Amino acid sequence: MPITFSYDQLYAFTNSVFLHMGCSDTDTALATTTLLSADMRGIDSHGVARLTGYVRLWEAGRINPKPNIRIVHETPSTAVVDGDAGLGLVVAPFAMQVAINKAKIAGTGWVSVKNSNHFGIAGQHAMMALEHDMTGIAMTNASALVAPTFSTERMLGTNPIAVAIPAGEEPPFVADFATTTAANGKLEILQRKNEDTPIGWVQDKDGNESTDANELKKGGALLPLGSDREHGSHKGYALGSIVDIFSAVLSGASYGPWAPPFPAYVPMPADMPGQGLGHFFGAMRVDAFRPANEFKQHMDQWIRRFRAATPAAGHERVLIPGDPERKMEAERSRTGIPVTESVADELRTLGEKLSITL
Amino acid sequence: MPITFSYDQLYAFTNSVFLHMGCSDTDTALATTTLLSADMRGIDSHGVARLTGYVRLWEAGRINPKPNIRIVHETPSTAVVDGDAGLGLVVAPFAMQVAINKAKIAGTGWVSVKNSNHFGIAGQHAMMALEHDMTGIAMTNASALVAPTFSTERMLGTNPIAVAIPAGEEPPFVADFATTTAANGKLEILQRKNEDTPIGWVQDKDGNESTDANELKKGGALLPLGSDREHGSHKGYALGSIVDIFSAVLSGASYGPWAPPFPAYVPMPADMPGQGLGHFFGAMRVDAFRPANEFKQHMDQWIRRFRAATPAAGHERVLIPGDPERKMEAERSRTGIPVTESVADELRTLGEKLSITL
Repeated sequence: MPITFSYDQLYAFTNSVFLHMGCSDTDTALATTTLLSADMRGIDSHGVARLTGYVRLWEAGRINPKPNIRIVHETPSTAVVDGDAGLGLVVAPFAMQVAINKAKIAGTGWVSVKNSNHFGIAGQHAMMALEHDMTGIAMTNASALVAPTFSTERMLGTNPIAVAIPAGEEPPFVADFATTTAANGKLEILQRKNEDTPIGWVQDKDGNESTDANELKKGGALLPLGSDREHGSHKGYALGSIVDIFSAVLSGASYGPWAPPFPAYVPMPADMPGQGLGHFFGAMRVDAFRPANEFKQHMDQWIRRFRAATPAAGHERVLIPGDPERKMEAERSRTGIPVTESVADELRTLGEKLSITL
Repeated sequence: MPITFSYDQLYAFTNSVFLHMGCSDTDTALATTTLLSADMRGIDSHGVARLTGYVRLWEAGRINPKPNIRIVHETPSTAVVDGDAGLGLVVAPFAMQVAINKAKIAGTGWVSVKNSNHFGIAGQHAMMALEHDMTGIAMTNASALVAPTFSTERMLGTNPIAVAIPAGEEPPFVADFATTTAANGKLEILQRKNEDTPIGWVQDKDGNESTDANELKKGGALLPLGSDREHGSHKGYALGSIVDIFSAVLSGASYGPWAPPFPAYVPMPADMPGQGLGHFFGAMRVDAFRPANEFKQHMDQWIRRFRAATPAAGHERVLIPGDPERKMEAERSRTGIPVTESVADELRTLGEKLSITL
């Protein structure tokens, strides 16, 4: 049975943990808000469930709690940011703000980031653009868990892409998805329930079809969006590759199978070609293309038309990207955040170790 | 049995057809080269097989052979281009060149296009950036053939995305894919052979699974990349939507189910919210992020590492996006371009009508 915490409870606890790590007050507040946005939006795998992992990375010396995050190269519409091994939860909002500032003057801003760490959920960073009447884009590379089409080797992360587009009276369009058939978090849910995956999510170590939710622990791999060649896995592989290249080859981070693994107990790959994880952010001012009110009216019309598309039998209506997360956020604002027993146990153990009460 | 033509034969014929439509010499040469690049790269559905369709659109007054293609709004890194109902084969290279010119000064350039028509293959336009040491991006919306997840209604086109990234000694990375499980061209191939599709490519008019390659003629729909909800079709739906919004809502073209249909005999949708088809192009100067030679060395390393990934049983090696098309282009440069009998018949009929010899 999951245990429900109030937002404030989890906020206070997480805040104390980041302070304990030595983060500044400002960075702590930012990291806490960013991390908990995942829990609020129902992306449970990327919220407080990751906190213990962050602490382990800090203990291993891989997270710098007092980073000097800075622009190391720039043009009117681009920048490269060095995260100085800081928390991605802090580096990402810094870099997204640089993209937004560039867009204010040049129309668009594009920032590639090196020397960072896991940044929480991509959607949260992309959504920073919305209040500026801009479209926001966020992506990141990640620990290699995904085999390219025709391969048995784990070469790419789940490499998510998020795109947030402002609307007028309607809520914004917010897509945020791993470039795999299923995110790793979905496997973890099945593992806890001791259930099988559908065919097409994972393969075994030899590249055979599998429905074992524990396949990654046995040398298997997640599959790119599309699952197999016949269903377009080469497209998911291409998407994951584009995210890897924009995030890491463009910035000077470590790419492909050399991306630093999230679990601190996994040794770092040998001969890493760059520094840390990489991210990529974009901001495009809507009125760099057409008047913002005109654009928003058409986005409203787009959203309403798609919502009104004829539903298939058994489905009430067609959803707009962002609808499920928005619904979850409204619900959890009222009822609190359910945390699985094992995650709650982990947090309590962490609290005892650091003398922080949950 | 397909009939093989030399490139020069098809070039001369296509050139004469565009001249007959009243295109200028320059536009004719550009449109011909762009169209035939699809045949050379093995994307047979988007090459000369489309020529008769273009002529029908011209006859219906939907293609303007002498367009005044122009920038109607711009900032340092963005522009909106009005294609003046010209051939997309001509409008797209114009707009991509604007993106490249912007990138030379601002670091990146982003161009949204309205009032255009079918632009051939996306990859060809994205690849224009490569010789400038830039990454090129191209996308377009298209006639609605794709049902969103949970719907039976055709709301989106196959809305392709192309990304071309320069390398050093290795050939460039060139991804070019429809945001559906299978492109419409693949259905056409099965129709000609009287064969079924795999499960997951199409659904029938009620949203049920189907393997009928003729399903689109019976009110069915293509499925977004991912095929069904369990395998991530909501991600393919989101990708197709992003392409639609960047290409058409940002520019003022007609979007979603209102995108102008390619077959000239299909009536235009009522109450279109914009003008013509929309495209979106991007160019990012590599050295707006890091020195070009450094980037290219790492792209070479990326490509070599992925090529060397352990292959699964039954596969010789892992491919890099762009490999199959490059191989096809080399082959057809030597042996010519095979055209199906039915396409060859169509071209001969067209030639007789216009007094042009094939």
